[in-house]
Amino acid sequence: MSYTIEQIAASLGAQAFGDVSISITGAAEPAMAGPDDLALALSPAFVADLATGHARAAVILPDTDWQAAGLQAAIIAPRGRLAMAGLTQMIDAQPAFSAVGDIHPSSVTDGAWIGAHCSIGPFTHIAAGARIEAGARIGSHVSIGAGTLIGDNATIHSGARIGPRVTIGQGVVIQSGAVIGADGFSFVTEGVSGPEQAKATGGCKKLTPPEKGEWHKIHSLGGVEIGDDVEIGANSTIDAGTIRATRIGRGTKIDNLVHIGHNVTVGEDCLLCGQTGIAGSVVIGNRVVLAGQTGVGDHHTIGDDVVTGAGTMILSNVPAGKVLLGYPAQRMDQSIASYKALRRLTRKPQTDK
Amino acid sequence: MSYTIEQIAASLGAQAFGDVSISITGAAEPAMAGPDDLALALSPAFVADLATGHARAAVILPDTDWQAAGLQAAIIAPRGRLAMAGLTQMIDAQPAFSAVGDIHPSSVTDGAWIGAHCSIGPFTHIAAGARIEAGARIGSHVSIGAGTLIGDNATIHSGARIGPRVTIGQGVVIQSGAVIGADGFSFVTEGVSGPEQAKATGGCKKLTPPEKGEWHKIHSLGGVEIGDDVEIGANSTIDAGTIRATRIGRGTKIDNLVHIGHNVTVGEDCLLCGQTGIAGSVVIGNRVVLAGQTGVGDHHTIGDDVVTGAGTMILSNVPAGKVLLGYPAQRMDQSIASYKALRRLTRKPQTDK
Amino acid sequence: MSYTIEQIAASLGAQAFGDVSISITGAAEPAMAGPDDLALALSPAFVADLATGHARAAVILPDTDWQAAGLQAAIIAPRGRLAMAGLTQMIDAQPAFSAVGDIHPSSVTDGAWIGAHCSIGPFTHIAAGARIEAGARIGSHVSIGAGTLIGDNATIHSGARIGPRVTIGQGVVIQSGAVIGADGFSFVTEGVSGPEQAKATGGCKKLTPPEKGEWHKIHSLGGVEIGDDVEIGANSTIDAGTIRATRIGRGTKIDNLVHIGHNVTVGEDCLLCGQTGIAGSVVIGNRVVLAGQTGVGDHHTIGDDVVTGAGTMILSNVPAGKVLLGYPAQRMDQSIASYKALRRLTRKPQTDK
Repeated sequence: MSYTIEQIAASLGAQAFGDVSISITGAAEPAMAGPDDLALALSPAFVADLATGHARAAVILPDTDWQAAGLQAAIIAPRGRLAMAGLTQMIDAQPAFSAVGDIHPSSVTDGAWIGAHCSIGPFTHIAAGARIEAGARIGSHVSIGAGTLIGDNATIHSGARIGPRVTIGQGVVIQSGAVIGADGFSFVTEGVSGPEQAKATGGCKKLTPPEKGEWHKIHSLGGVEIGDDVEIGANSTIDAGTIRATRIGRGTKIDNLVHIGHNVTVGEDCLLCGQTGIAGSVVIGNRVVLAGQTGVGDHHTIGDDVVTGAGTMILSNVPAGKVLLGYPAQRMDQSIASYKALRRLTRKPQTDK
Repeated sequence: MSYTIEQIAASLGAQAFGDVSISITGAAEPAMAGPDDLALALSPAFVADLATGHARAAVILPDTDWQAAGLQAAIIAPRGRLAMAGLTQMIDAQPAFSAVGDIHPSSVTDGAWIGAHCSIGPFTHIAAGARIEAGARIGSHVSIGAGTLIGDNATIHSGARIGPRVTIGQGVVIQSGAVIGADGFSFVTEGVSGPEQAKATGGCKKLTPPEKGEWHKIHSLGGVEIGDDVEIGANSTIDAGTIRATRIGRGTKIDNLVHIGHNVTVGEDCLLCGQTGIAGSVVIGNRVVLAGQTGVGDHHTIGDDVVTGAGTMILSNVPAGKVLLGYPAQRMDQSIASYKALRRLTRKPQTDK
Repeated sequence: MSYTIEQIAASLGAQAFGDVSISITGAAEPAMAGPDDLALALSPAFVADLATGHARAAVILPDTDWQAAGLQAAIIAPRGRLAMAGLTQMIDAQPAFSAVGDIHPSSVTDGAWIGAHCSIGPFTHIAAGARIEAGARIGSHVSIGAGTLIGDNATIHSGARIGPRVTIGQGVVIQSGAVIGADGFSFVTEGVSGPEQAKATGGCKKLTPPEKGEWHKIHSLGGVEIGDDVEIGANSTIDAGTIRATRIGRGTKIDNLVHIGHNVTVGEDCLLCGQTGIAGSVVIGNRVVLAGQTGVGDHHTIGDDVVTGAGTMILSNVPAGKVLLGYPAQRMDQSIASYKALRRLTRKPQTDK
């Protein structure tokens, strides 16, 4: 595929300068760019690299002198990463899937309802009673369980496991190896378990074996509901709810190796970054952004517009709009002050002695 | 499936009141319950919701006035979550699997031994020399390696990877994407490696490249042994031992995305919650409960009846019966006191100035 | 397979004593060893166990009196774990794969290029345009995408997902369930997002919803490049780069459930232990060893020969040769001093009162 600088700028809603008839076929970092690549030079370091590479055209920030950088054409992107979103989407050829309408003969779909223009890869199994809406693209080795609905134009990558009793919205993207709808981790003993003893005593008393300490499973009957335009990362897991669905709101994006426990409700337009873990029955508002390796203890509520730093451990409810960091979580500025104070604490004795 | 309130109470060993002939076909949260649902109202908030929904019958705690809540019948559950275990098991239809005795024609099982009444899903591969005992239910896309034994009535969900040289007990449940028996992460350099230098110096000296710093692999010959009634969560991994098996004791339940390293021994009736990580050669006692994102450093020993809070990092041996929290782990009450003291530390200078 | 003590010692480059003609067929821990097992007694505890077991020969450290321990033969290994690497490799029968040259008839490989002496397991799909070099061994249920290259003698275990646009070096080992080349987690809003607000204010001001808060995806066009002799653990994920490849250097070993974000560069001969998470665009040097559950925040640079303790959270750049521990990361000795000081802090007020 080939595009002119003019076409790209128009598509991005951005301004172009210089010889806008130049055609490009790909995008590259400035130092590695060839003459047919559009260089992406959205930080000063990358602008300096333009001289090293061979790009004729680049996407740049508003204050960059593109002529001094030796370019023949430039697209000015006031919000650079937004331009990258548009640009990479234009160039993405998405070759991982079969042609539209192509159902691989090795797939097993007896008794499932498959809409128009779907593609289904090799060795995929769609259980009887599942329903795949029009335009869905399903890779190889996918399992889709009974009673599961896949929305229009959803993309399910190879080896994802979905269902039973899962509803996937329109345009949802599920990466390889994600497991949606496995049993929740919910067990109970007849006797008073260790965690129940610990809660009662605050942890200051030695725990003793309960009389009847075998774990009985609370089964998961509630499935999962995934809203429109959600994305779920590779090898992430979203467990089924107990008697109602675990829910992920419209537009929320979930990274790789994230765990969402049973009965959790996540709002709309959230970002949950890599290896974040949400324990059972947590409620998360809209536009919440949890950085990598964040943890949320069970049954807590997190308000709208909360943001955490990496590795934050949330062990209580969080009001809307808070920025948190630390183990356990504090307001970010207070958390940084705490850790600095902790360092000062150990420096003092060393200089005194 | 439909049950009367009387039948359910009898099955749970609980007392029922009111019109016990009422039939229900499912369970629901009180606000969402229809007339044929049994509402589960095991906390005050849920009792208040009974008026919103349309349930005629509910499971309630002993001190709830079921008549005032507008119910026609009630089951009193002194230990509510235990009642939920029994109830959800009754209602669970388990539709994810083929009928008993159904071996899907696409599966490849040449040279494996398959017991009576097993079901095997599409695209499952069972290697020659593996043995599947009677009543095992195996989903789609499962791989079972050579020399692996699956016990009676085990349930292996789609896409699990098991073996080679793995022994799975009776009634074990393995969720989708779990990998049991991959190679342990065990490597050694010829020269003195960075971690060995760090250990020798306590970390206060700059590390230097070892002369022969390539990593040589210690192969995993020991397999994995999983006791009866164990459950293993989605996308969790349990690595093979070096020259003897990695072992998980009877009745232990493991959540999603948990990592169990090579040579680890986990006792009986433990709970290991989401994203917990156990490094190589750790020994864990019985009835240990590790909350989500807990970590245990290699070669440590954890006694019976230990409980941790979320994100606890264990870097030393732990005596039986302890309740731990924090990074690094302390007794829970001391850990909470530490974190409070740390916050006071930063508040003081701010008010002084 | 059977080896004499003399053969094993020669293969390990180690010295043997006693009746070196004794044959062994396996390796075992001393207490469990039978007469045909070579006992591995590389620590004092294991030497004491030799009397319990029935081994005639053992691998021991230089200062062990093998005759007093009742052995008929011994191999002296000055660097014990290195000997274990050689020994376990000799004994490992690697039964998990089909015979060399065996392409299972159920696999789908139309349009892919398959080199000589490759083996491919049941239900594996290799997309048109992929290239598999000579001697590669590919298990069952593997997906290999378009434009992907698998190097000579690579080993891909069952259920791994690779590609599109991924290059795998020679001799690479990929464990089950690993996902190489999924889309990076890279999203941008039109309006000023919560994390951008938090960065601007340091977290002390309540965040407000952006005007246009939907997340737009930056597509991943750059693929992944994996160097020779890399190993990647079960269910780990390595995301594709945006416009250039995410890169893992020669000889680096990655454990289970590790997440490597898009655009990351990892150097040579590193070890990344279980559940470590590396956020996007991080650069890691050579011979870096990150212990289990280590986290690295996005865009940071880590020098050569850095070592971390378990659960370390790196939120800044790290110079070469440092040993780190803690949340947030400090030099290991300072971090330990900090945590000790924190404990003293809470003890004082308790004794004062």
